[in-house]
Amino acid sequence: MKPGTSRLEAFSDGVFAVAITLLVLQLTVPEVASGHLLTALLQQWPLLATYCASFLTIGVIWVNHHSVFSYLERADRTLQFLNLLLLLCVVLIPYPTSLLGRYLLAGHDAQVAGAAYGLVMTLMGVAFAALWGYATGRSGLLRAGVDVARARQTRLRFGLGNLVYAASIGLAWLSPLLVVLLYLVTAIYYAFDQIPLAGPDEDVR
Amino acid sequence: MKPGTSRLEAFSDGVFAVAITLLVLQLTVPEVASGHLLTALLQQWPLLATYCASFLTIGVIWVNHHSVFSYLERADRTLQFLNLLLLLCVVLIPYPTSLLGRYLLAGHDAQVAGAAYGLVMTLMGVAFAALWGYATGRSGLLRAGVDVARARQTRLRFGLGNLVYAASIGLAWLSPLLVVLLYLVTAIYYAFDQIPLAGPDEDVR
Amino acid sequence: MKPGTSRLEAFSDGVFAVAITLLVLQLTVPEVASGHLLTALLQQWPLLATYCASFLTIGVIWVNHHSVFSYLERADRTLQFLNLLLLLCVVLIPYPTSLLGRYLLAGHDAQVAGAAYGLVMTLMGVAFAALWGYATGRSGLLRAGVDVARARQTRLRFGLGNLVYAASIGLAWLSPLLVVLLYLVTAIYYAFDQIPLAGPDEDVR
Amino acid sequence: MKPGTSRLEAFSDGVFAVAITLLVLQLTVPEVASGHLLTALLQQWPLLATYCASFLTIGVIWVNHHSVFSYLERADRTLQFLNLLLLLCVVLIPYPTSLLGRYLLAGHDAQVAGAAYGLVMTLMGVAFAALWGYATGRSGLLRAGVDVARARQTRLRFGLGNLVYAASIGLAWLSPLLVVLLYLVTAIYYAFDQIPLAGPDEDVR
Repeated sequence: MKPGTSRLEAFSDGVFAVAITLLVLQLTVPEVASGHLLTALLQQWPLLATYCASFLTIGVIWVNHHSVFSYLERADRTLQFLNLLLLLCVVLIPYPTSLLGRYLLAGHDAQVAGAAYGLVMTLMGVAFAALWGYATGRSGLLRAGVDVARARQTRLRFGLGNLVYAASIGLAWLSPLLVVLLYLVTAIYYAFDQIPLAGPDEDVR
Repeated sequence: MKPGTSRLEAFSDGVFAVAITLLVLQLTVPEVASGHLLTALLQQWPLLATYCASFLTIGVIWVNHHSVFSYLERADRTLQFLNLLLLLCVVLIPYPTSLLGRYLLAGHDAQVAGAAYGLVMTLMGVAFAALWGYATGRSGLLRAGVDVARARQTRLRFGLGNLVYAASIGLAWLSPLLVVLLYLVTAIYYAFDQIPLAGPDEDVR
Repeated sequence: MKPGTSRLEAFSDGVFAVAITLLVLQLTVPEVASGHLLTALLQQWPLLATYCASFLTIGVIWVNHHSVFSYLERADRTLQFLNLLLLLCVVLIPYPTSLLGRYLLAGHDAQVAGAAYGLVMTLMGVAFAALWGYATGRSGLLRAGVDVARARQTRLRFGLGNLVYAASIGLAWLSPLLVVLLYLVTAIYYAFDQIPLAGPDEDVR
Repeated sequence: MKPGTSRLEAFSDGVFAVAITLLVLQLTVPEVASGHLLTALLQQWPLLATYCASFLTIGVIWVNHHSVFSYLERADRTLQFLNLLLLLCVVLIPYPTSLLGRYLLAGHDAQVAGAAYGLVMTLMGVAFAALWGYATGRSGLLRAGVDVARARQTRLRFGLGNLVYAASIGLAWLSPLLVVLLYLVTAIYYAFDQIPLAGPDEDVR
């Protein structure tokens, strides 16, 4: 008998791995007149900055995805489709990333690109919170030994990042550059486990 | 001893994961005159609509692929090649998707793009039905405990979606936009398990 | 203790899965004057033909890779690097594929493209034969229960396809189109197990 | 209970597999006047040379990543993020690779491209050394049976390649072509196990 969620995790891991790697495709080789490559590369820093912000963000989403599924015994159809919606948002991320990298210094268009970036992240966060809410709300999905009451209490903390994501849509009108910094900081926030259920085993399993 | 179909599933999962993620590549950053990014993004809605339709469709194909293989004990060479044909069609999907996204509002060309989309989906559906028909028709492939008679009865229900796919080729001549909506609805149809063999275990394993 | 070659297989599966899926990227959406999409699509048949030939070829390489590793107990460093060389050739395949798809009907350039296609396939075949030759030649790599003498006898049969691959380089000067057909036929030849060692278990495991 | 680091390895394998395969995308089909394809292909040799150097380099990084994780029992959050930083650098590699392939023969720009290549490799090497240093420095992460003292002694040898990487940044100003050769040689250096801890089991597990 196969483990309860192993193939679902394998598929999700694959999608995360491809999505995070496609981020590099926004970095295109500049065509320059002889001797101007260094200048051209230095001017690409917005692409590199958004690459780092999105790479760490997707990486942290994956780490938390990993944590969530380590608490799950089984996945029913509904959970599987909530997971599919989450992946739909994750796979989108390279698009607003390259959009923001291209238009980060472009005045009003930078605001639009930053808002699009924040919007996709917010949708991703909502889908993730829905998945975690469903997983902790329905009996029989969590592994035996997981404290259901504590798991439900983490919903709020788990969803807190969404406020940041939503706020970033508005922040984009003030400073698109701040949006990039905000995502770097949020990635670090989520780097610390927001759903520590298993006591001494809070390390990755 | 390795489980009977695990590496075949791992390879298939990888192909599904890459194909579904490549869908994002059709969303390219528009080059606009200063201040026109928002308008340009809003005009990209056909790309986003076909992205969602194809993402959910491939996602649902994967879910059903997962269900099918959870009933299989072994895979012989024939099954492996039917699986390869199925993957050949799945990997093609990003192409008609971007075709339809690009030409969705382009009159006669939209009809052509919609028909191409429906054609690839139909070929995929035929390959999938052939795989399931073969798996249930040949002894020794299904897992012990799977009710073969019930499994064979599901062939018809499993193949029903193909009528929808085939009809979509014709529908494209009426309204390419309806084709996109149809695929969103079909994805939801297939979201509910069409081959529920194992009783209480109909959840994903 | 982890199984002997599982992570090597997982990595290889991932590379195969991505390489086979990248083949679709050669199919680019044509930009046409209104009403000319159907004609443009029909003219893309060389791209579709080389897509199918390469997809089946990579698929069959994977199937045989799978067979080979099912006979292996362990992988030492040398085997791992022979495997890396094989993957280096497999990952290249999308490039001559799109080259041949682009220039299939272009006279002398078609011959060049066909020869490049055959060359990459030949290198791949040589790397694969070297891997199988090494695995069967060194003690301790094959699984207990595998008949070493029989395994070594299969080397010739396993390498036979390489003659076809090498011949295809020359054949390209006669007819690049025949090269595409030849690869479709070779894929079918290799579809039948050329290293059937384990008797009744010759099915995929 | 799942093995300690299996999903982390699966995700990393996926990222390595995609990154190594994306290298082929730098090889684009040249558009030539009739009869000039052969010349155009031969002129692409810098792209092929950097393809091989980066493919082998990423392949060897993967092999060593595999070795490192075979010694690990568990991964805590810190290790997971050091791993994420390593992957961030690995995923970047296709970019300086195509940069160097494009500008290898371009005088001063070749020097810039070579230095960028060396810089990314150095960052990767530093991240990898940090990961190995952390893993061997903190108790409880290494598998029982691994000789911690010997493991720590390997840190220096493990980090030696970084001197080569760092030197390559400077070397780029002398000869960008030598940088490509250097990476081919370094890949071969690392092909031999630099952290042989487990005695007779030094083969890949």
